[in-house]
Amino acid sequence: MTTEAGSAETSSARERIYIFDTTLRDGEQCPGASMTFEEKLEVAELLEEMGVDIIEAGFPIASQGDFESVLEIARRAGDVTIAGLARAIPADIARAGEAVKPARRGRIHTFVSTSPIHLAHQMKKSESEVLEIIARTVAQARNLVEDVEWSAMDATRTPVEYLVRCVDTAIRAGATTINLPDTVGYAVPEEYAAMFREVRERVADSDKAIFSVHCHDDLGLAVANSLAGIAGGARQVECTINGLGERAGNAALEEVVMAIRTRGDVMPYETRVETRMLTRASKLVSNVSAFPVQYNKAIVGRNAFAHESGIHQDGMLKNASTYEIMTPETVGVKATSLVMGKHSGRHAFREKLKELGYELGDNQLEDAFKRFKDLADRKKHVYDEDIEALVGDEVAVAAERVRVLALTVIAGTGGPQKAIITLDIEGNHVTKEATGNGPVDATFNAIKAIVPHEARMSLYQVHAVTEGTDAQAEVSVRLEEGDKAVTGRGADPDTMVSSAKAYISALNKLTAKRGRQHAQAAASA
Amino acid sequence: MTTEAGSAETSSARERIYIFDTTLRDGEQCPGASMTFEEKLEVAELLEEMGVDIIEAGFPIASQGDFESVLEIARRAGDVTIAGLARAIPADIARAGEAVKPARRGRIHTFVSTSPIHLAHQMKKSESEVLEIIARTVAQARNLVEDVEWSAMDATRTPVEYLVRCVDTAIRAGATTINLPDTVGYAVPEEYAAMFREVRERVADSDKAIFSVHCHDDLGLAVANSLAGIAGGARQVECTINGLGERAGNAALEEVVMAIRTRGDVMPYETRVETRMLTRASKLVSNVSAFPVQYNKAIVGRNAFAHESGIHQDGMLKNASTYEIMTPETVGVKATSLVMGKHSGRHAFREKLKELGYELGDNQLEDAFKRFKDLADRKKHVYDEDIEALVGDEVAVAAERVRVLALTVIAGTGGPQKAIITLDIEGNHVTKEATGNGPVDATFNAIKAIVPHEARMSLYQVHAVTEGTDAQAEVSVRLEEGDKAVTGRGADPDTMVSSAKAYISALNKLTAKRGRQHAQAAASA
Repeated sequence: MTTEAGSAETSSARERIYIFDTTLRDGEQCPGASMTFEEKLEVAELLEEMGVDIIEAGFPIASQGDFESVLEIARRAGDVTIAGLARAIPADIARAGEAVKPARRGRIHTFVSTSPIHLAHQMKKSESEVLEIIARTVAQARNLVEDVEWSAMDATRTPVEYLVRCVDTAIRAGATTINLPDTVGYAVPEEYAAMFREVRERVADSDKAIFSVHCHDDLGLAVANSLAGIAGGARQVECTINGLGERAGNAALEEVVMAIRTRGDVMPYETRVETRMLTRASKLVSNVSAFPVQYNKAIVGRNAFAHESGIHQDGMLKNASTYEIMTPETVGVKATSLVMGKHSGRHAFREKLKELGYELGDNQLEDAFKRFKDLADRKKHVYDEDIEALVGDEVAVAAERVRVLALTVIAGTGGPQKAIITLDIEGNHVTKEATGNGPVDATFNAIKAIVPHEARMSLYQVHAVTEGTDAQAEVSVRLEEGDKAVTGRGADPDTMVSSAKAYISALNKLTAKRGRQHAQAAASA
Repeated sequence: MTTEAGSAETSSARERIYIFDTTLRDGEQCPGASMTFEEKLEVAELLEEMGVDIIEAGFPIASQGDFESVLEIARRAGDVTIAGLARAIPADIARAGEAVKPARRGRIHTFVSTSPIHLAHQMKKSESEVLEIIARTVAQARNLVEDVEWSAMDATRTPVEYLVRCVDTAIRAGATTINLPDTVGYAVPEEYAAMFREVRERVADSDKAIFSVHCHDDLGLAVANSLAGIAGGARQVECTINGLGERAGNAALEEVVMAIRTRGDVMPYETRVETRMLTRASKLVSNVSAFPVQYNKAIVGRNAFAHESGIHQDGMLKNASTYEIMTPETVGVKATSLVMGKHSGRHAFREKLKELGYELGDNQLEDAFKRFKDLADRKKHVYDEDIEALVGDEVAVAAERVRVLALTVIAGTGGPQKAIITLDIEGNHVTKEATGNGPVDATFNAIKAIVPHEARMSLYQVHAVTEGTDAQAEVSVRLEEGDKAVTGRGADPDTMVSSAKAYISALNKLTAKRGRQHAQAAASA
């Protein structure tokens, strides 16, 4: 091991690795993780602030909603590159070009399958037909934007002979990035590295493009394969926050970035990612996708730095310097959490919010402070997580057409469970009572009696936001109506109240979404 | 890629990889994951049935509870090897030897730090002092059992020169397995492989021992490092179900086993693990540790095979043979879940249980069937998970000293929340009422009013066992009293009832634990 040689190197001697985040595309399209328009904007903003190089914002042809979110993210983007995905179909490429047009740096990312199994079963095309498609579609994309990425879908199951011809064709047609994904999560590190080496050696103009890795974690090897691809000459890593993505997900951004940073001694690379924002990014994506992060998840799991907490087996004396390869602070975990309580003032609250990365307007701050005081009256300790949940609530308040005013629930073994709820609907107060199969069901039935709708609930989830008996319960509710899916969240020490808030929040989002679609339909009519 | 060459190989040409599961030791000692005596026995039984070669059952000197569970697992073991951990201290080794003695195959696993940073800060010993300790402690262990494993703690940060001398000493003293762990999760695959190659080459009698990998996932590389170690000559893999373990956890058993199986074409190895039991093992460990498995976890996550569910982007035609590298059935996921309902009879119920891997006695079956019918009356669809939750309840019923008879909860925004509960305590019915901060708090306060105790609640967790509004809620409650920790679980469509059941179940376990300790104290007095 060459630790000393590594640390003696200057940062400028390090080669740049470009981080391509596809949380909003490959992550968002995985079952159960779909995000709303506003949630996507929020994630994109955080990714840009964190220093990601390329954000794949969506798949514009897939739906009107996907198109709009890519368009809006492109409009708001600063220096970050915004990519839109497109199949090797003229209409797809045109739509992606349109969506990324407002970006200062826009990229069209087009892909086609190259493996024999995909050619035979999915494409029903010959090798030479596919080569012709590559030449034509990459050229079309290059006429629309300067920055074109081409991906060989299922590259790891493609004979290298044919892969070389495909890559050569794509580069000649103007592709500036070549992605060789391990689409099915099948590769092992040595063979993935070897594929990049061989393709780069054999393609004449390989130095005209940046090569890219894109790995899935089906065998638990996504991060190792990504690093192996870099060793083979790739300089872009496609990855997602929390490893979100289809099946077992993509390589986790936080793991790739921290592996490169922590083992700079054997990997002479660097990324521009501000690692202290990794924990916040993880929490945001976990919240908006309603995908929990497991406690023992590397870098961002609750236990990832648990050696900090004095929890080791009796008699095994340990100290941080002997067991720590990175500090919690590096990834944005606060070593000590300042406990806020009912005596904390407005100033301390504002400072705390700043420390947590939130800047609120005066009115928003005032409202959030009021909620904080209400909470502090009901709860012994108010932790950072409580405050984040509370501010998340606050930031969402703008769109609240319907609000929960009062709720009484009677539950237990006697059944049927009963709920009486009073809602404020744009100023009007309405109260209804309903029974149900369990108290949550009764509560939702009462809401439905006041706000009738046809949406299907596809997820109901309770998280204890902080530890202990008096923890805030945070509830996520996902509603689906036609092709629209929204996730609402609510936090309160009373699970029933959180559930009602989450359900109402989802209903409000659904209404907002309907409104936007009506407006668009009217505009395009 | 050599798929054809690989599949042409016969199974007997494959080298055996020994699977050493440390879920009950490295997994169980991680913060928040401690298991009860009964839970450990249950996990050990499943691991043996699944074909694991070595079960590290605990750290016998750590506590009386650890000693007893290793002893009992050793008593019950068949052909599987039972290992007990010991520091390089005579008392530890003696205690471990005593604990594994009843096993047909018992192993003492002793370790000492070898890295300069550990020697300086933790051990405060010189290199030659540590060599002497290795010789002495391994010899002591070898006098007690035939099968001795020695681990070089923090091997990956130890200069190879010194590591070779340590390993040489351990083998001469009688160690039959040599483990070179990546204790801090710092290694990258190539260097981990190189370390094994170099140590095995330079140690004269290296072929007298089996070399072992033990990897932590701090940088997301645990599985890749484990496979790299095998490539470097290791033939034992230390791992845990769900990757449970300190910090970011250990290499996940299910990922290592499935990577070897799926990529047999490039890895000419085999394990004896019955992969169809992996999903059941994952669920059991997730339940007893109260550590949720994230949806996008490889192999055992809810979404790991989600390409099955027709969920892909509109227009991307896919079919299983093009996107599937392993089938869900291989890891024990049922392709279709037989939906049971209120019309299902006793016979179908018994068949379903058999299919899920449960064999109940007649009385237990009758009780479980009654609960199933009650549930089916209240719930449209009864899924496999519902039945598993219900049987889990049933299997635990034996030790129920206190039971929940009736519960009424009044919750909502009006506060304070109120609960009225009636408990059956060994035949006596007692009713109390209490208020609290939220309905769960009120319920627990009411229980505490009837059954006063000093235990601290360290975890409260709600899982929706199945999807949809009428899902069963499964609640986990962990109580701690002195050095005792227990986890109770309860399942019911009403979250409040599940919470009460879980709390009572934990209290019952605590009482049983106190009883055992008193009995022991009396016996040894």
